[in-house]
Amino acid sequence: MSRTVFVNGEYLPEEEAKVSIFDRGFLFADGVYEVTSVIGGKLLDFAGHAKRLARSLSELEMDSPVTEDELLAIHRELVSVNEIDEGLVYLQITRGAADRDFAYPKDTAPTIVLFTQAKPGLRDNPAASVGLKVISIEDQRWARRDIKTVQLLYPSMGKMAAKKAGADDAWLVEDGHVTEGTSNNAYIVKGGKIITRELSSDILHGITRAAVLRFAKEAQMVVEERPFTIEEAKQADEAFITSASTFVMPVVSIDETPLGDGAPGPVARRLREIYLDESLKTAI
Amino acid sequence: MSRTVFVNGEYLPEEEAKVSIFDRGFLFADGVYEVTSVIGGKLLDFAGHAKRLARSLSELEMDSPVTEDELLAIHRELVSVNEIDEGLVYLQITRGAADRDFAYPKDTAPTIVLFTQAKPGLRDNPAASVGLKVISIEDQRWARRDIKTVQLLYPSMGKMAAKKAGADDAWLVEDGHVTEGTSNNAYIVKGGKIITRELSSDILHGITRAAVLRFAKEAQMVVEERPFTIEEAKQADEAFITSASTFVMPVVSIDETPLGDGAPGPVARRLREIYLDESLKTAI
Repeated sequence: MSRTVFVNGEYLPEEEAKVSIFDRGFLFADGVYEVTSVIGGKLLDFAGHAKRLARSLSELEMDSPVTEDELLAIHRELVSVNEIDEGLVYLQITRGAADRDFAYPKDTAPTIVLFTQAKPGLRDNPAASVGLKVISIEDQRWARRDIKTVQLLYPSMGKMAAKKAGADDAWLVEDGHVTEGTSNNAYIVKGGKIITRELSSDILHGITRAAVLRFAKEAQMVVEERPFTIEEAKQADEAFITSASTFVMPVVSIDETPLGDGAPGPVARRLREIYLDESLKTAI
Repeated sequence: MSRTVFVNGEYLPEEEAKVSIFDRGFLFADGVYEVTSVIGGKLLDFAGHAKRLARSLSELEMDSPVTEDELLAIHRELVSVNEIDEGLVYLQITRGAADRDFAYPKDTAPTIVLFTQAKPGLRDNPAASVGLKVISIEDQRWARRDIKTVQLLYPSMGKMAAKKAGADDAWLVEDGHVTEGTSNNAYIVKGGKIITRELSSDILHGITRAAVLRFAKEAQMVVEERPFTIEEAKQADEAFITSASTFVMPVVSIDETPLGDGAPGPVARRLREIYLDESLKTAI
């Protein structure tokens, strides 16, 4: 069965979903994106994603071709028509198509594309009870990781490096400290304390990160926002990542060093439960 | 008149030239490119561009969908059918279309796109007798600038920053030293010596750069390949950039500080002449 996707105002079969070769998303990676999770046919943290999208666009002096209400309606229509119970909605906006020039074109209509990905088992993901193995690699990305752009080649290379090493993902290290995972925020737990890098242009301002830290504090957990090294991480009691598509996912080894007893830790397990319970209450 | 462009084996009117929204060039900036100049209907330095393309693809473990001979034939056909006397041929290869996943897809056909841009006056560009004004900005790009990928958002932002400052381009500064321009290599001239940053993953290995340095040495000019600071550049006798589309172009001011007498310098002028004369001899 072919998915129905959304391209510039039209709902189309995925085979017909195309953009111009002159689209600046294709020629210059001049575009931003968001991924929103769906559970039980409902969108998690939609408002958070819409808000971050608006910020990414603003940082790049790009206009949105749709209002937040229209965006929500498109998300819902795609979830409905593609019968997504558990999965993702991907959204991308680019500066649009224009003859190739490094300078931004004037008065070009932005391109907007949305599609769904069915991910049965997203909520009760068996990976959560096994945990992830991560490797560490140098963070070679551009400096503005707070803008969620489609310049994703290095994260993609990092994911491949992890796979080749028999691991699941890579943590990125800059000036000796972990920034984040290839497509997720990174956390360690030591002596009951949750440690994660503070917000700056060095990392993505994760929507799931914000929610998880809020829930952690509400549950009286201690959160310390500061950089940590890979060495500190290897000596942690446990570790985990957060992202819109993995929620909270335990990390059980770093560079082949097992953390704690090598099984998912209690803090990650509890935060995953809390995040899913709380987020589903406000899913729309 | 609509251009004829090349997309995955077909020659098409530009309005019909499209790629899937699932193309990894669009979703992940997972693609590389080259730009070859055309003068008098002939391609400059084609072999150099083909060689660098092969290296970029190899660094990303990507396959070329065409041989070098086929690539040349497509370039020539587009130049001919679009009646390009002076202009550019743009070429992009991506890892192809696949459902969105950071991991590289298996057995996906690469996407190949080529189009021309007519640039009348490219050879006798009046800008060469006026010279460019550049500003300096922090180099915030990813670390692998030796791979010519389409992750061009920061260079694009740099070009806009230059325009807003009333300048023509930006020189990128990292750890106090100039790496290169937004889409060109950077040079200063002091006491008759041509100074330009040495090759590494910090800069693009310019095809025009290689040719210009070779011609400079053949003309008994002294070339020093080493990093230089913006402060050193501002005290230089003259400065210039090289790229496939600008050849050799004088720089007359940096951050509003005029260089020398504020007019294009003799070394840049001479190198432009030599480059054009010599390159046209081997144009195909």
